[in-house]
Amino acid sequence: MRKKLVLLITGLTICQLNFAQSLDDKMIRGIYDEALLRGHAYEDLRSLCKDIGPRLSGSSEAAMAIRWSEQKMISYGFDRVYLQPILVPHWERGNPETAWMTLSNGSIEKMTLCALGGSIATNGLLEGEVIMFTHLDSLKKARVEQVNGKIVFLNQPMNAAEIQTFKAYGACYPIRGNGAVEGAKLGAKAVLIRSLGLPSDDFPHTGSMRYEDSIKKIPAAALSTQDADRLAQVLQTGKALKFSMEMDCRNFPDEPSFNVIGEIKGSKKPNEIITIGGHLDSWDQGEGAHDDGAGVIHCLEALRILKTLNYTPEHTLRVVFFMNEENGNMGGKTYATWVKSLGEEHIAALESDRGGFTPRGFGCDGTEAIFKRFTQLESLFTPYDLHVWEKGGGGVDIGPLKNEFNGITLFGFIPDSQRYFDYHHADSDVFESVNKRELELGAINMAALLYLVDRYGLGQ
Amino acid sequence: MRKKLVLLITGLTICQLNFAQSLDDKMIRGIYDEALLRGHAYEDLRSLCKDIGPRLSGSSEAAMAIRWSEQKMISYGFDRVYLQPILVPHWERGNPETAWMTLSNGSIEKMTLCALGGSIATNGLLEGEVIMFTHLDSLKKARVEQVNGKIVFLNQPMNAAEIQTFKAYGACYPIRGNGAVEGAKLGAKAVLIRSLGLPSDDFPHTGSMRYEDSIKKIPAAALSTQDADRLAQVLQTGKALKFSMEMDCRNFPDEPSFNVIGEIKGSKKPNEIITIGGHLDSWDQGEGAHDDGAGVIHCLEALRILKTLNYTPEHTLRVVFFMNEENGNMGGKTYATWVKSLGEEHIAALESDRGGFTPRGFGCDGTEAIFKRFTQLESLFTPYDLHVWEKGGGGVDIGPLKNEFNGITLFGFIPDSQRYFDYHHADSDVFESVNKRELELGAINMAALLYLVDRYGLGQ
Repeated sequence: MRKKLVLLITGLTICQLNFAQSLDDKMIRGIYDEALLRGHAYEDLRSLCKDIGPRLSGSSEAAMAIRWSEQKMISYGFDRVYLQPILVPHWERGNPETAWMTLSNGSIEKMTLCALGGSIATNGLLEGEVIMFTHLDSLKKARVEQVNGKIVFLNQPMNAAEIQTFKAYGACYPIRGNGAVEGAKLGAKAVLIRSLGLPSDDFPHTGSMRYEDSIKKIPAAALSTQDADRLAQVLQTGKALKFSMEMDCRNFPDEPSFNVIGEIKGSKKPNEIITIGGHLDSWDQGEGAHDDGAGVIHCLEALRILKTLNYTPEHTLRVVFFMNEENGNMGGKTYATWVKSLGEEHIAALESDRGGFTPRGFGCDGTEAIFKRFTQLESLFTPYDLHVWEKGGGGVDIGPLKNEFNGITLFGFIPDSQRYFDYHHADSDVFESVNKRELELGAINMAALLYLVDRYGLGQ
Repeated sequence: MRKKLVLLITGLTICQLNFAQSLDDKMIRGIYDEALLRGHAYEDLRSLCKDIGPRLSGSSEAAMAIRWSEQKMISYGFDRVYLQPILVPHWERGNPETAWMTLSNGSIEKMTLCALGGSIATNGLLEGEVIMFTHLDSLKKARVEQVNGKIVFLNQPMNAAEIQTFKAYGACYPIRGNGAVEGAKLGAKAVLIRSLGLPSDDFPHTGSMRYEDSIKKIPAAALSTQDADRLAQVLQTGKALKFSMEMDCRNFPDEPSFNVIGEIKGSKKPNEIITIGGHLDSWDQGEGAHDDGAGVIHCLEALRILKTLNYTPEHTLRVVFFMNEENGNMGGKTYATWVKSLGEEHIAALESDRGGFTPRGFGCDGTEAIFKRFTQLESLFTPYDLHVWEKGGGGVDIGPLKNEFNGITLFGFIPDSQRYFDYHHADSDVFESVNKRELELGAINMAALLYLVDRYGLGQ
């Protein structure tokens, strides 16, 4: 099962290669020891989640998190710490949502829902009859007279039988992204979706949705999976019911904000940059612990570890806390065009945005030759239970770099995904849902891959 | 990375083999779907943990759990459900422990500890000076005059840098198992150990300890890791302190108890048995959710799934809920000698006793030929992220079968181990610490391996 280290550098003698492998083994072991015995990741995440909390773009908490991140990077002694100005959307949930259904016998049941990010308000109480569809495609095929004047309920569950939970999420994503547009086309007065979460519980999961300029904007909200089941059950009895909801959301003009950047300067190729990042913003539910507090802490800790181990990089290693991944990706988009305009050379970028769970491996979006070299790293990680070395990936924040830099290689960290959609965009995504060792192992893997990419030039 | 299915059965044509692989793929996919879409594992574990709770051998709760298990197996329609009488130790913690330390300035601090399983009581308040050792070997090398009349504190931490947490546990196990004997040899009046747990928290972890007939019995307890750190800190100041503790534990005569057994009869070789099991007993802390509620539920659900899918096994498939793994292993030992005396033929046994976490793979303790065939199963599980196919393993409960059946093959389920020692033998090992999907995936893996062992005769 275990493969021997395939040579990463051609032209070295066997003796030199043994030394290289032994050097890598030692460095990686050193990274593990630093993170697991003297790590800062867990306490840093605790501070980000508990001292600040959720960090939606444009909020005061997001501004606070930017200062927190800058100070943290300065305290770790990186060569350069600075802010990159960007402009971000500013949406607020306002007062907590209220919703209930009135059964045909007159009794009422309170429902747990949350506005989707970007939704308009209901402007007071919005009430109507509910029509349910179990797939967005069924709504698209419906007739205006079926839907007109009603509240559309998209009860399309994530497929629990799918082992790769991100695939199950991707399959349901359209109900959240496009539900309001598709409903409004047929005259719906609001859209309710079943939360994109796997467990049966009472936490609604928010997330981004979109409007189209030419289509009427209608309010959009997510019901908890338990209340989605309950609503479906009542609807299936065929008894008429009325659904009532009030949401107070507001959109404000775009706001100035920042990506937070820290660097260790390259010793040989300082103008060649390797970016490692996650997103500092989160939704306004929970504390953004897994999404993406864990990711930014992975990256911060990775750079701290390399610095603490006195590693001298060949390339410039740059950690970026991107702002606004959740509702606009202005951080990622602006960063890519900005660094291009500065004339920088970017060879590779690594992202962590899949939560703070036990590592499984990495994805690599690069040339065939790079991918082959990437898979040859596997033996270095076999003692540490990494086994996924797959094609593709990267992430939303670093994705735009691909448009600006021909041949840049993107890497995405892949942790175990089974628990991610228990917490994603919900009030349950709090610090307590992150396990210390699992978080530390993620930081280790980011540090180790960053080291190897720097050392073996696994970009371009 | 992905291996083609290597032929498990010789002598079949290519056509037959393609059929076999496709049959296996379909069966395994069916197992996944049944467990993830219509599974009983999570609700069964909830009932075991919440309706009954901890199940220490000899306790009323253990008796209740036996009846619960029997009824559950009957309700699942197994061909035969029965109890195997055994005799188990009966130890009780009694009243909750109390402990504190008195600092040299007279102030007192309450300490959180729990008696180790099997410890004698303190018979009222036990007080004394504390002497700390950071390794059991240091205690062994100490002189009588250093230790005599004192309370020995074994502050040997689990190595957090060890990725395989069971290895870190194994390295510290001797302080729990042998601390009291080694302390008593030098005249100690009691032994405190640092809990065998990885996090820094306030949960003491109990577990088995032993006495020797020729050595004086002294009380033994585990301090929470936080209080172990605090005690060490105070001791390192060099200021004298007094430690006070009271424990009410009692030993009773051995009690009658039972292993709980359910079977699906083999269609071709009913006299050849494949055992699948975990242990029904737990320590009296928490709810025994991961240790080993998850394991018995894995096995119960595995057999339920095969039955629900109308699988007709060739061999007799037998699920065994072993009693008394934690403090005597009388269930495992008695089962092995009993089935031997009945003249049964046992070809293989599978155990789950490493918690309800995301599966990584299996260990196999069998001949080289069997091990080779075992590793050839890997490709069937690649879509499901299984990657560990290692030599050795099995488990405490099924281990004694090895003594009775020459050439029996033992398999052990290997889930991710990062969180196991957060909960092991502590009040934190409750139902809420188990994730639904992770639990279900464990049951699936036990079912799938059981199916493959039955189908391909991967025993003997």
